[in-house]
Amino acid sequence: MNDLANIAAIAARIAKDAGAVPMRHFRQGGLGIELKGDQSPVTVADRATEKAIRAALAQAFPDHGVFGEEFGVSGSLDGPAWIIDPIDGTRFFLSGYPGFGMLLGHLQSGAPQVGVAHMPALGETYVGARGQGATLNGAPIRARATTRLDEAVVFVNEAERLFADDPARFARLCAIGHTRRMSYDCYPHALVAAGQVDAVTDIGLEAYDFLPLAPLIEAAGGVMTDWDGQPLGLGSDGRVVTACTPEIHAAVLEVLAG
Amino acid sequence: MNDLANIAAIAARIAKDAGAVPMRHFRQGGLGIELKGDQSPVTVADRATEKAIRAALAQAFPDHGVFGEEFGVSGSLDGPAWIIDPIDGTRFFLSGYPGFGMLLGHLQSGAPQVGVAHMPALGETYVGARGQGATLNGAPIRARATTRLDEAVVFVNEAERLFADDPARFARLCAIGHTRRMSYDCYPHALVAAGQVDAVTDIGLEAYDFLPLAPLIEAAGGVMTDWDGQPLGLGSDGRVVTACTPEIHAAVLEVLAG
Repeated sequence: MNDLANIAAIAARIAKDAGAVPMRHFRQGGLGIELKGDQSPVTVADRATEKAIRAALAQAFPDHGVFGEEFGVSGSLDGPAWIIDPIDGTRFFLSGYPGFGMLLGHLQSGAPQVGVAHMPALGETYVGARGQGATLNGAPIRARATTRLDEAVVFVNEAERLFADDPARFARLCAIGHTRRMSYDCYPHALVAAGQVDAVTDIGLEAYDFLPLAPLIEAAGGVMTDWDGQPLGLGSDGRVVTACTPEIHAAVLEVLAG
Repeated sequence: MNDLANIAAIAARIAKDAGAVPMRHFRQGGLGIELKGDQSPVTVADRATEKAIRAALAQAFPDHGVFGEEFGVSGSLDGPAWIIDPIDGTRFFLSGYPGFGMLLGHLQSGAPQVGVAHMPALGETYVGARGQGATLNGAPIRARATTRLDEAVVFVNEAERLFADDPARFARLCAIGHTRRMSYDCYPHALVAAGQVDAVTDIGLEAYDFLPLAPLIEAAGGVMTDWDGQPLGLGSDGRVVTACTPEIHAAVLEVLAG
């Protein structure tokens, strides 16, 4: 097993083990809701989950930097490092809706190399590493070969934010694809890697929301960039497109640009 | 066990047993997509599931009428009858997204008495019967006591349709609640019964989409009506509000009316 494949296997185990933490809180009362500046609900579960992941990373990779949603940066992100979204989809989590995930990405000099999306309430673990392919619960997965946008299954994430940002763009997105769903968070992106969904648009994300997904999508043969078609990095603006093929990717970028 | 409780237990078993049918097709290739007049994808799985439910109903209740999405009306709906949505959320189903459900409702003279929402990919079965309470996988559930809309978890279903129907109403709905998610189909309604979600707005539904849910919501202590606050029946116009309390129900009706 080469380095990246080895790192991916360890990352998947860390995410799965830590999945017990949010599941102890899911659908229980007293979630300890607070409001952050951006109005995103933060729960006790969110913090406890990041702590569990950080503890496991510190044991497996004591020299690596870590950047997590809840506790910020520890060490340096210039070399080998990790990026964590302990509960991606806290609002789904608070709604008792099992579409929330846990994201864990490995970076080298800021460039994502390995990505894990673990869905603890669904029992699904998506793993990808650059050059190593992608898996769902250990079985190989691959993005679909769809090339025509009118045959595509498209997920439009963060509809309210997209609508508030530019109603005309929202209206254009409401007219594309063969099958279209509004959704949120990591799961539709993971379904592109799994060959179920053909494209996802997203907006208003932070680096920990999208950097762990990029290697998963690319290892599955898909494309994930910002809305200008540029590779994703720590400094990206949080507007993201995931697509199964370069053709669908180009077609969605065109719709977004108007 | 009285009649309705007995009927509910049989309905739950029928829905759960038939759940094996869609799961044989879920995330498989070659779903046999066609397009109906309303552009809703129909799959082989949809038809096979309704056939399985109809066969089980014919055995348990040979004299009852049946109205299903795929095969229409058999017998009379004036007396005891059943209403079936074999796969509620065919677009989720086609997207490999586990948020689709199976709906089975029992009517007396057109009025819904018993409702089952079975989520085969999630392993969750929600059952309610008028006067008998509601359960999730056999455990009692109850709608929440939330009364303030600004503290509510609100799901807005069918966002594109709602936006196309009236952009101003859509914009109003984009501003309510403490936590808001856009979603689809039966699942958010079932989560109101389970005390996880406080309100759901829906639009463009057919009788088989909402009549099986009404007894589930009401048995859990919630409220489900059309947008005018009228009880749901076979002739309702497909615009639906589900709420955990009369207070939240009234507040959402007010936002819808503008």
